[in-house]
Amino acid sequence: MDRLTLHEDPRSGNCYKIVLTAALLGKPLNRVQYDIMKGETRTPEFLRDVNANGRIPVLQVGDRFLPESNAACWYLAEGSALIPAEAFDRADMLRWMFFEQYNHEPNVATLRFWLQFVGEANLTPFQQGQIMAKRAGGEAALAVMEEHLTARDWFVGGSVSLADIALYAYTHVCEAGGFRLHDYPAVCRWLKRVSALPGYVAMD
Amino acid sequence: MDRLTLHEDPRSGNCYKIVLTAALLGKPLNRVQYDIMKGETRTPEFLRDVNANGRIPVLQVGDRFLPESNAACWYLAEGSALIPAEAFDRADMLRWMFFEQYNHEPNVATLRFWLQFVGEANLTPFQQGQIMAKRAGGEAALAVMEEHLTARDWFVGGSVSLADIALYAYTHVCEAGGFRLHDYPAVCRWLKRVSALPGYVAMD
Repeated sequence: MDRLTLHEDPRSGNCYKIVLTAALLGKPLNRVQYDIMKGETRTPEFLRDVNANGRIPVLQVGDRFLPESNAACWYLAEGSALIPAEAFDRADMLRWMFFEQYNHEPNVATLRFWLQFVGEANLTPFQQGQIMAKRAGGEAALAVMEEHLTARDWFVGGSVSLADIALYAYTHVCEAGGFRLHDYPAVCRWLKRVSALPGYVAMD
Repeated sequence: MDRLTLHEDPRSGNCYKIVLTAALLGKPLNRVQYDIMKGETRTPEFLRDVNANGRIPVLQVGDRFLPESNAACWYLAEGSALIPAEAFDRADMLRWMFFEQYNHEPNVATLRFWLQFVGEANLTPFQQGQIMAKRAGGEAALAVMEEHLTARDWFVGGSVSLADIALYAYTHVCEAGGFRLHDYPAVCRWLKRVSALPGYVAMD
């Protein structure tokens, strides 16, 4: 099998998804770390050799490069029980992964990044002006998750899938972005289910 | 096979992706239309019966409901040549589909919606204040596409895949959002390749 290398910033939940997927599958992963706060993913070398979009994570498979966290999780998990065997469920898993990138991450992850790593006092006026909308968007995403999990243990079917891993990454640290997890009891029970999985590793 | 029904607003490029995928595959699709400008996807009935997230498109497969345009395209295309047979290419196709939802759609599609359907004079001050950032984000996404397509006919491998369909939907109408297609010649050549595919249907 091709050597797997993760180009990452370990503070990023998007990178953690890939680390957690590999851990649950028992696949070894080399890790190369960059500091996004220092612009290390915007250098000419990074843009040329790793990702023209200037973002981490990127999963390197031999000499090929795969950006986008959820695509990398898919690559690692193909053929495993982390991807449902039934066709509708497989598409439904992708549905929650697209929901994560569209409705959840730009709100929940961005507020964590701004408040925990940049610092509220250092935000630009444009960023300051977006906080309320991102708070509302993140709460709406968490409410959709809460409603879905009220009658279910996992997002799709009867066992853990990549949908759970993708949504776990930023949900379990959302309080750093000012969200209140105790408002979402079904989400809290599901977070415990994920962290009790055999092979689970915590975020750095 | 289960009956396929698309819950859609035909002005939405996200809905068009599914229509185009079904057309290229020769799969019949029933279509139920809603007017998002009139809030028809936010009614209690829609939220309860179709999508708790209040969004279209939703692909109905028998009595199951699948939100998220790119997940619906995946469901329709599984087992067809629109999904690459090679594992890395399959993940790389998903990579471009996540790029589309994260970097392209929130900028390129949103500006088209605001300028063509809402009207610039009717935007809220908050929306007005986001135009410049969405313009820059959309141009950056188009530049990533331009660079990728300069040496390639299709986004992944040697033939059309769902990555092309997902990115085509809002790119081919991006001028309605104020983007200039002639700044991206490789993108323009690729748009013509997509519209020349057997079975291609235009957006309503």
